[in-house]
Amino acid sequence: MNGAESLVRTLVAGGVDTCFANPGTSEMHFVAALDRVGGMRCVLSLFEGVVSGAADGYGRMADKPAATLLHLGPGLGNALANLHNARKANTPIVNIVGEHATHHRQYDAPLTADVEGVARPMSAWVKTSMDARSVARDGAAAVTAAMTSPGQVATLILPADTAWNLSDGPAPVARPPERAKVPEAAIAEAVAALRSGEPTLVIVGGLALRERPLKTASAIVEATGAHMIAPTSNARVERGAGRVTVNRIFYPIRQALEQVSQYRHVVLIGARNPVAFFAYPDMPSLVMPEGCAVHVLAEPQDDIADALDRLADAVGARPEQAVLQKAGRPDLPRGAITPDTVGSVVAALLPENAIIVDEAINSSGTTYAQTAGCPPHDWLALTGGSIGIGLPLATGAAVACPDRRVVALQADGSGMYTVQALWTHARENLDITTIVFANRAYQSLEIELRNVGALNPGRIALDMLDIGRPDLDWVKLAEGMGVPAARAENLEDLIDLFRSSVGRPGPFLIEVPI
Amino acid sequence: MNGAESLVRTLVAGGVDTCFANPGTSEMHFVAALDRVGGMRCVLSLFEGVVSGAADGYGRMADKPAATLLHLGPGLGNALANLHNARKANTPIVNIVGEHATHHRQYDAPLTADVEGVARPMSAWVKTSMDARSVARDGAAAVTAAMTSPGQVATLILPADTAWNLSDGPAPVARPPERAKVPEAAIAEAVAALRSGEPTLVIVGGLALRERPLKTASAIVEATGAHMIAPTSNARVERGAGRVTVNRIFYPIRQALEQVSQYRHVVLIGARNPVAFFAYPDMPSLVMPEGCAVHVLAEPQDDIADALDRLADAVGARPEQAVLQKAGRPDLPRGAITPDTVGSVVAALLPENAIIVDEAINSSGTTYAQTAGCPPHDWLALTGGSIGIGLPLATGAAVACPDRRVVALQADGSGMYTVQALWTHARENLDITTIVFANRAYQSLEIELRNVGALNPGRIALDMLDIGRPDLDWVKLAEGMGVPAARAENLEDLIDLFRSSVGRPGPFLIEVPI
Repeated sequence: MNGAESLVRTLVAGGVDTCFANPGTSEMHFVAALDRVGGMRCVLSLFEGVVSGAADGYGRMADKPAATLLHLGPGLGNALANLHNARKANTPIVNIVGEHATHHRQYDAPLTADVEGVARPMSAWVKTSMDARSVARDGAAAVTAAMTSPGQVATLILPADTAWNLSDGPAPVARPPERAKVPEAAIAEAVAALRSGEPTLVIVGGLALRERPLKTASAIVEATGAHMIAPTSNARVERGAGRVTVNRIFYPIRQALEQVSQYRHVVLIGARNPVAFFAYPDMPSLVMPEGCAVHVLAEPQDDIADALDRLADAVGARPEQAVLQKAGRPDLPRGAITPDTVGSVVAALLPENAIIVDEAINSSGTTYAQTAGCPPHDWLALTGGSIGIGLPLATGAAVACPDRRVVALQADGSGMYTVQALWTHARENLDITTIVFANRAYQSLEIELRNVGALNPGRIALDMLDIGRPDLDWVKLAEGMGVPAARAENLEDLIDLFRSSVGRPGPFLIEVPI
Repeated sequence: MNGAESLVRTLVAGGVDTCFANPGTSEMHFVAALDRVGGMRCVLSLFEGVVSGAADGYGRMADKPAATLLHLGPGLGNALANLHNARKANTPIVNIVGEHATHHRQYDAPLTADVEGVARPMSAWVKTSMDARSVARDGAAAVTAAMTSPGQVATLILPADTAWNLSDGPAPVARPPERAKVPEAAIAEAVAALRSGEPTLVIVGGLALRERPLKTASAIVEATGAHMIAPTSNARVERGAGRVTVNRIFYPIRQALEQVSQYRHVVLIGARNPVAFFAYPDMPSLVMPEGCAVHVLAEPQDDIADALDRLADAVGARPEQAVLQKAGRPDLPRGAITPDTVGSVVAALLPENAIIVDEAINSSGTTYAQTAGCPPHDWLALTGGSIGIGLPLATGAAVACPDRRVVALQADGSGMYTVQALWTHARENLDITTIVFANRAYQSLEIELRNVGALNPGRIALDMLDIGRPDLDWVKLAEGMGVPAARAENLEDLIDLFRSSVGRPGPFLIEVPI
């Protein structure tokens, strides 16, 4: 068998059975091998940013890597922005990037570029296979690297001749190292902070935001009188009725500073010491107040569940002390369409076990609170600040969880970066309901322009923030890619459209003017 | 004045008066400065691949750099694929990339990434400004770097505090070094080859494909009995009636090898020794036959016009020996819509001084020949093999040349990568007629899958090449972004639609099922 087939067999045997692809000529042997091997679901996208964002959504929900299939340096370049988000989410991903044959690279053909150089900024692991007999071993190492905690982006570059030449067959995938147990000293330090009698904040991130560890964390803060919060943006939060509700640090820096100003200790559990999203003149970069002692119980890559169990034992927290969210939804709203009433509609009608993908930016502020008492669901957010992940993330989540409804809350400006994802929603008939909040502006930037002190901006500056003129017609965009769609002119429309969409298979898009 | 304003003033005074932008928070001071300074046309796009591709189209037509305005590492990442094409086209571009404030970068905020690392693979010049007093000087150096022959991508990274702190005002832009005169030995070597009596091919690229140098080259080959050809893909060819028509090396490697198999000498003038686009098992990487002597008259960065003049003198070529293209167009075609008949329509109706942007890939093969006798026009092609440049390239060409009609020949698969460009066509009311060849497949890959020996591909492989299911509706996509559009169901439709579009201002898109 050739190198490409040895790699596909290695991936499938190693549990990597889904590939998001936008292949080109140099990947044709890999594509040809897919039919011979079997067991790999291949999902085509029309742009590489959809591929990488979908792999992120898949990895967050499946807790194992998908493969991507990308075409040389420029194809990988198109995937970088959402690989950046995946890196910040600690999502496992195995990128397979085609490259010119080893003997061809010296000639500076049109598509020649420094592929490793393109890969490095967003990858924890990068390797170029040297020959066909190495490809399977390299692929196995890439899977292990991707699975290494807390989850990593691994990029394997595959020169065309390493795909078409003869291989030695597949290679076994080694198990990644176990997550490290945190030292006793870290437990003791957290205990001391929690028992200090001073105001203490516990910040839970990463795997601490899954159902069971979050219950343990809740019991700990209840037992000790501490408070608990999550970072602003999180890869995945398991929430809803019967689970623990956790608030998040505010995005606007002034509000965030005020939110945590009272604390003298912060205990970090799978989360980093919070940092302002952007710097501003005369504003601090770190969110916690000066003099607040920082205690790291567990890094994102550590055995977080074990650390929480041990901390609970140490402070005498009992499971039944966890504060569980009561079931409850808002009534269906009346009146005008606003971000709040749209959130109420989502909360009133959200199906059980849904996956909410949140890239509504300025329009989803209250939806998080409104859905707290909904039936159990997952909430996936933009982790790296690179807009254009929502529609791809929904794609990957829906592929990973075919029995669950995905609800994508999508801002219009962000949605346009990777609008091509809608075509994959249609082709794969994915159960995704997309709500586009059409405010027709880069609204974040209007706020930020004021924040940086441009109090009276002129026409040229304002033109850079205004994505109306012409208005985007999301119904036509969706239909142009095969996704049925409608515009909600009022709340009654929205209620009807959302209810019917979540009740039947396949994708649907609702444009909501805000 | 702050650093941002000192930079904008430096750019404008240095002749950089057009900025393609997709800004974010960290670029708000730059945006705010635009209103205070004046003289900079700012064109917003909804995706960074449109920004960089438009800057490429602008630079190719204006022969000077546009600026881009991009948001941190991920924003630059989205621009990379078309910066790759620009690099291969030797297009001057000045990228301005926002970055976190210098004191904020240490904290690994969500958007933190290795911006210089992202920039380097596609940039000839990269610098991060250290403080507000350096920004103007760094900006001036970036313009000089971009203008340095043969034209380069220069990337200036601008930490937010260098934009908001106090500067020393603008800095003067130094002239780039003159293009080097080629040594006498290079002239003599070319003369010897041309007079060798052996079959000799002259390959003209880069600036040799402009009207006047191409006439000189034509006179030289006529005077010496050599043949002349251009590379497969060229940044810009000035052609049409009264100019010199030059054929191109075939893209398919077998045809290319046959095309040049007879030659014993090749003289390179602004072109590189031709290389196969991809490697194939048992195929050579270099196109010229073994034993063919390679003579470099002028590298792309040399003074090509001067080298041609001196070579013409040395071989006694007289200007009137140049073979000029006779005026002539095909008749309007009848019958079925095929790539050939579409090309005939374009050739029959192309307005004088048009700019043809060719990303039709498999559908434009004969259009190049059919338009040879059209009124003078420019032909811009995909130089780096990274598909998704056509619609952005048309954007930039139309901004650079507001009095000329741009005709974009666009394959459907390629067009989807940067489909967001249509919105900028609409917002700026650009005179662009786009013809989308809707074959509903990655047709190149169907050919390449056979080329790599996968003779009987299965369903999974074929699915990766088929972009139907669902079919894209380009009329809805265009209308969704504010571009009027129609589908040509037959040749008569196409003739009517194309004729009316090129006769009135503003953009129009015609979907042509192929």
